[in-house]
Amino acid sequence: MDKVIVTDPPRAPLESVDALAGYGVATVHEALGRTGYLGPGIRPTSPGAQIGGTAVTALCWPGDNLMIHAAVEQCRPGDILVVTTTSSCTDGLFGELFATALMERGVRGLVTTTGVRDVADLRRIGFPVWSAAVSAQGSVKATAGSVNTPVVVGGRIVRPGDAVVADDDGVVCVPRARVGSALEASRARAAKEEATRAAFRSGELGLDRYGLRETLDRLGVRYMTAQEYAAQRAGETGAGGTP
Amino acid sequence: MDKVIVTDPPRAPLESVDALAGYGVATVHEALGRTGYLGPGIRPTSPGAQIGGTAVTALCWPGDNLMIHAAVEQCRPGDILVVTTTSSCTDGLFGELFATALMERGVRGLVTTTGVRDVADLRRIGFPVWSAAVSAQGSVKATAGSVNTPVVVGGRIVRPGDAVVADDDGVVCVPRARVGSALEASRARAAKEEATRAAFRSGELGLDRYGLRETLDRLGVRYMTAQEYAAQRAGETGAGGTP
Amino acid sequence: MDKVIVTDPPRAPLESVDALAGYGVATVHEALGRTGYLGPGIRPTSPGAQIGGTAVTALCWPGDNLMIHAAVEQCRPGDILVVTTTSSCTDGLFGELFATALMERGVRGLVTTTGVRDVADLRRIGFPVWSAAVSAQGSVKATAGSVNTPVVVGGRIVRPGDAVVADDDGVVCVPRARVGSALEASRARAAKEEATRAAFRSGELGLDRYGLRETLDRLGVRYMTAQEYAAQRAGETGAGGTP
Amino acid sequence: MDKVIVTDPPRAPLESVDALAGYGVATVHEALGRTGYLGPGIRPTSPGAQIGGTAVTALCWPGDNLMIHAAVEQCRPGDILVVTTTSSCTDGLFGELFATALMERGVRGLVTTTGVRDVADLRRIGFPVWSAAVSAQGSVKATAGSVNTPVVVGGRIVRPGDAVVADDDGVVCVPRARVGSALEASRARAAKEEATRAAFRSGELGLDRYGLRETLDRLGVRYMTAQEYAAQRAGETGAGGTP
Amino acid sequence: MDKVIVTDPPRAPLESVDALAGYGVATVHEALGRTGYLGPGIRPTSPGAQIGGTAVTALCWPGDNLMIHAAVEQCRPGDILVVTTTSSCTDGLFGELFATALMERGVRGLVTTTGVRDVADLRRIGFPVWSAAVSAQGSVKATAGSVNTPVVVGGRIVRPGDAVVADDDGVVCVPRARVGSALEASRARAAKEEATRAAFRSGELGLDRYGLRETLDRLGVRYMTAQEYAAQRAGETGAGGTP
Amino acid sequence: MDKVIVTDPPRAPLESVDALAGYGVATVHEALGRTGYLGPGIRPTSPGAQIGGTAVTALCWPGDNLMIHAAVEQCRPGDILVVTTTSSCTDGLFGELFATALMERGVRGLVTTTGVRDVADLRRIGFPVWSAAVSAQGSVKATAGSVNTPVVVGGRIVRPGDAVVADDDGVVCVPRARVGSALEASRARAAKEEATRAAFRSGELGLDRYGLRETLDRLGVRYMTAQEYAAQRAGETGAGGTP
Repeated sequence: MDKVIVTDPPRAPLESVDALAGYGVATVHEALGRTGYLGPGIRPTSPGAQIGGTAVTALCWPGDNLMIHAAVEQCRPGDILVVTTTSSCTDGLFGELFATALMERGVRGLVTTTGVRDVADLRRIGFPVWSAAVSAQGSVKATAGSVNTPVVVGGRIVRPGDAVVADDDGVVCVPRARVGSALEASRARAAKEEATRAAFRSGELGLDRYGLRETLDRLGVRYMTAQEYAAQRAGETGAGGTP
Repeated sequence: MDKVIVTDPPRAPLESVDALAGYGVATVHEALGRTGYLGPGIRPTSPGAQIGGTAVTALCWPGDNLMIHAAVEQCRPGDILVVTTTSSCTDGLFGELFATALMERGVRGLVTTTGVRDVADLRRIGFPVWSAAVSAQGSVKATAGSVNTPVVVGGRIVRPGDAVVADDDGVVCVPRARVGSALEASRARAAKEEATRAAFRSGELGLDRYGLRETLDRLGVRYMTAQEYAAQRAGETGAGGTP
Repeated sequence: MDKVIVTDPPRAPLESVDALAGYGVATVHEALGRTGYLGPGIRPTSPGAQIGGTAVTALCWPGDNLMIHAAVEQCRPGDILVVTTTSSCTDGLFGELFATALMERGVRGLVTTTGVRDVADLRRIGFPVWSAAVSAQGSVKATAGSVNTPVVVGGRIVRPGDAVVADDDGVVCVPRARVGSALEASRARAAKEEATRAAFRSGELGLDRYGLRETLDRLGVRYMTAQEYAAQRAGETGAGGTP
Repeated sequence: MDKVIVTDPPRAPLESVDALAGYGVATVHEALGRTGYLGPGIRPTSPGAQIGGTAVTALCWPGDNLMIHAAVEQCRPGDILVVTTTSSCTDGLFGELFATALMERGVRGLVTTTGVRDVADLRRIGFPVWSAAVSAQGSVKATAGSVNTPVVVGGRIVRPGDAVVADDDGVVCVPRARVGSALEASRARAAKEEATRAAFRSGELGLDRYGLRETLDRLGVRYMTAQEYAAQRAGETGAGGTP
Repeated sequence: MDKVIVTDPPRAPLESVDALAGYGVATVHEALGRTGYLGPGIRPTSPGAQIGGTAVTALCWPGDNLMIHAAVEQCRPGDILVVTTTSSCTDGLFGELFATALMERGVRGLVTTTGVRDVADLRRIGFPVWSAAVSAQGSVKATAGSVNTPVVVGGRIVRPGDAVVADDDGVVCVPRARVGSALEASRARAAKEEATRAAFRSGELGLDRYGLRETLDRLGVRYMTAQEYAAQRAGETGAGGTP
Repeated sequence: MDKVIVTDPPRAPLESVDALAGYGVATVHEALGRTGYLGPGIRPTSPGAQIGGTAVTALCWPGDNLMIHAAVEQCRPGDILVVTTTSSCTDGLFGELFATALMERGVRGLVTTTGVRDVADLRRIGFPVWSAAVSAQGSVKATAGSVNTPVVVGGRIVRPGDAVVADDDGVVCVPRARVGSALEASRARAAKEEATRAAFRSGELGLDRYGLRETLDRLGVRYMTAQEYAAQRAGETGAGGTP
């Protein structure tokens, strides 16, 4: 493990990040070609929040939040702190005091593969968190790690300065150099979704809109009545109608 | 895997299903002789909803929602769509666009062993969902499956046309031909519960109401004071009072 | 397994327990020297509640709630019922009828390693529960266990009469004889946290407040610019800039 | 739950079951159209065994093996006992004494979603077991269940009399009425696999043998050199070659 | 957490521990009244070993093996080292070098809730290990813990000096003061099992030997033929034989 | 997701990779500064194998092995195939036919986050596999992915051409440009371990060899006798010796 604190990683431009955040996690993930989603294991502790920001990353030892303290100093307005550990850890490495310090610095939220605590206070003071667990288990400050190096969260790489968007669907990470194209693709996808929404409201089916009847036919999917299916199944499960 | 779309499975009568839904999941499950519960792994994304409907089933390949598109067409007013995959999959195979299409057709909700996405939107538009996960991870439409064939959810069989009841306790499935008897048994159980509730409020104990003192006695359970128990334990853990 | 119901375990004094509860789970856990937390697996079904009480314990067989019935009789005003099973079990051993009986007796809440059901009703009647699962799966009343013997929850020992504090962060257990010192330590810790909160609000960093710059230095953590780090990484990942 | 012991379910013919067993789990599963596999959670405790037999099913309460005792009496030579519980349970409901009784009756093995114990003895006496866990935790004999009713294992339905094949890849269940066609399809598949094996040994690629180059092309998969890919990635991750 | 190293806990007498070990985990667990089993999560990395010894316990911080070093010094011939962490941790806190040191001191094996590494070497040198995981992930030596205080493994309490028995079924812990009675009960149980084994070999059924026919009858379990059952099920699943 | 097949990623030199492999996973992981380990979730299906090779990577859709077919063509003698999916998947995407094709090309083994099947055959033909699961569940060939792009396995990045070492402890990945320094560090570490081994054999303690007595003292860890500890605990758990 690198024992490094990187002080000035370039960030994605905040105005673009803010625009991305407006589209929400699912749309941005699709716009990226179905990449960047940090997985179903990272859940909001403050449902209803929808934020975007630039990543400051911290890699900690399990049970140890020393590097979060180091990371706070590297945070700037518009950042989102992203924390992980060298091996799986659900301890509450982060709580309301950290949130107070981060809000003071203009940080917008936390994403962590560990647990968090003081969740009632975090909701009260309005600091949104996405985490793998809630846990009151406390930490030590004894072992080295790194700040602002690439980390892996939910099987995806998060680099410092990347755009991070989080809402009730979880968290998506957009590589810094792809923020512009992701924004454009998100706009296009949102427009397409709006058109589909209207079509669905007027009764059109996905089968027709996406040309899927042909796909079903090519794959050999057959339509049959319940009676036909029951007859076929009766043959398969033997005489006597054994269920 | 059958590659089949069954078009007209008979449904349980909606008025009975609606009546069942009023009793809630726990009561109906007990009324069925403690069967039909789809397990603790299927949780509501819109807490507070309580619905009933008739099952339309879809069996998909992991990471693929083609058969949900096929299932939408088979849905009628009063249905609940029940989705599973051939092997475990948490991807967000379902989102707000599907919900829009289903609401248009009078569908009452979704039950799925996969993930769902757009959960904030789903809450906003009032389409209730019970799922194993929340995930923004997107899907393809490339592999065959089936619609309206029996599926397994949480270790229980759900057949098309079965009654499905869902609330904050999860989901229960009532076989179509048992809906009548389940309704009767639910009424009886609810009445019994009401009587028990009144008795408990007036201070009666379950030990007495259910005749369990005799059971405890037969099983050899002894009452003792804290002092007696401490003495027995001291003997067991040795001299010196090592804890 | 002991087949025992202990009738009169001494309880921690309620006024102290109530005072402890006011500090919340995370603070009490820290005040105890980072012990007593029952782990991230026990979660509130009624978010927002914060309670304290004295433990009455029940050890059940999986799928069987006989001993909960026996435990109800042993409960007094100010108690919290703590339930576990001899092996892992998510079934809904507890529901609204039990809660009705316990509220009648002045019991303040339930902590269980099993599932619970009727969670909408539990919220409605205001009986707070912390559990490992929500499940409608019903139980039998057929196998012996114990009441008011030491049990293990989340890897920690809970003894009857211990103080239990629960909030949105989970549950902490304070040994009866340590309630006094825990209360004193909680007071001290809360004061220290308040001072830290004020310092963080005025911009002080944890790095300085806790003297961690020295720790980082001793551990060999180096500060470098993004450019320096990129140069080092380029060396490590080889010529050609392969990512 | 049915409280039923079915005494004489028709069995798949043993000679066909034996022939199926020779093809192994993966081949039979493919021959069934990729169905019937009981999932990766059921693992052999005696690696190296490969057996086939006809299913006798038992549905037990968690922590309770009463119905296994009832099932033993229903077993005949050539059977495989298939055990599950009404909710998840890892207890060791089965051990060497049961195996001794079953071997006496000509039973070929056990498949269970629970734990087993005495695994060293089971290996020594040559009784093969596929289970979800190994656990010495003992059981009671207090609650009703059923024998020879349909059960669900790993998301698949197993009916009494079905053919069960088990090897180091796990367990597959073939519906009784499909044993003939499954045998025929397994023969065909094994022949096809042998031809593919020979082709692969002589250097042919799956891409060519299965016509997949066209698929890749249709899906838009592009070939590029490492240099081209590095150039594209450099564009995506920004100037300076940050990894 | 206590920061304590207890130097001279009294041990269970080795001759009794050795005799207990001969009965194996499942028998001793039953002889203790179905208590003391450390759960299905602790598995042997060297299948085939069967050992007994007296517990020396170590409680570590996650990712940190400092206290294992402290524990080595407290080990004597006949001991088994039992390791756990303050929160869940799969890291490889123990490897072949530790085993070499322990073998030098006459220690018989390791039981740990963490991971271990060098497992091929551990098998080669004949040091048996029961662990929750295998992991090469390394550790630091930075945080305090305790040696020879009571710890919790798999939901059971292990106290220093307790007897520990381990084989392919896992691990059981016998409180020091109960070793004598456990030995006696194990002898009795083994004799009873031998008689049952002989009875089962001669064709007697558990239903008769344990008087379970009466239990089944009392619980309302009915015997029926496959034809009768099919008729009942047809009624339940409706006309038309829908499967 | 990139839809890309990279044809000629530079590989780490095989002679260095082979030398690294000789040191084994745990030593190489430590030599890398405790990085690169692919986690405890990837286990050998053929215990006893110890291999090294250069990574060819494949990223597949869940339930789909199309890109493994594409990857086979990119493999050269000395390679190890590393497979993952865009979301979690335990299906058996790989079996004996693939192994036959890979052995023909000089490939040394497989590492996969998915399941594998035909494991008995894989052992028989001597093709070693490290996987997250064993599963007979079959796959389709319908969805695009990538070959020889960076992938994430167990929270670590594996790039094509990196050195991969695998043994009974799991799998470690060494970045291509660090192979030389890793080899040097592994040599040094192995020598140090050999010295430590000799010291431990002669009775030296880790406490002394690593200077840990001072650490324990600094952290406030106290030595006490069992009697002293019991006295302190008695104070903590209250009068009357309640256990």
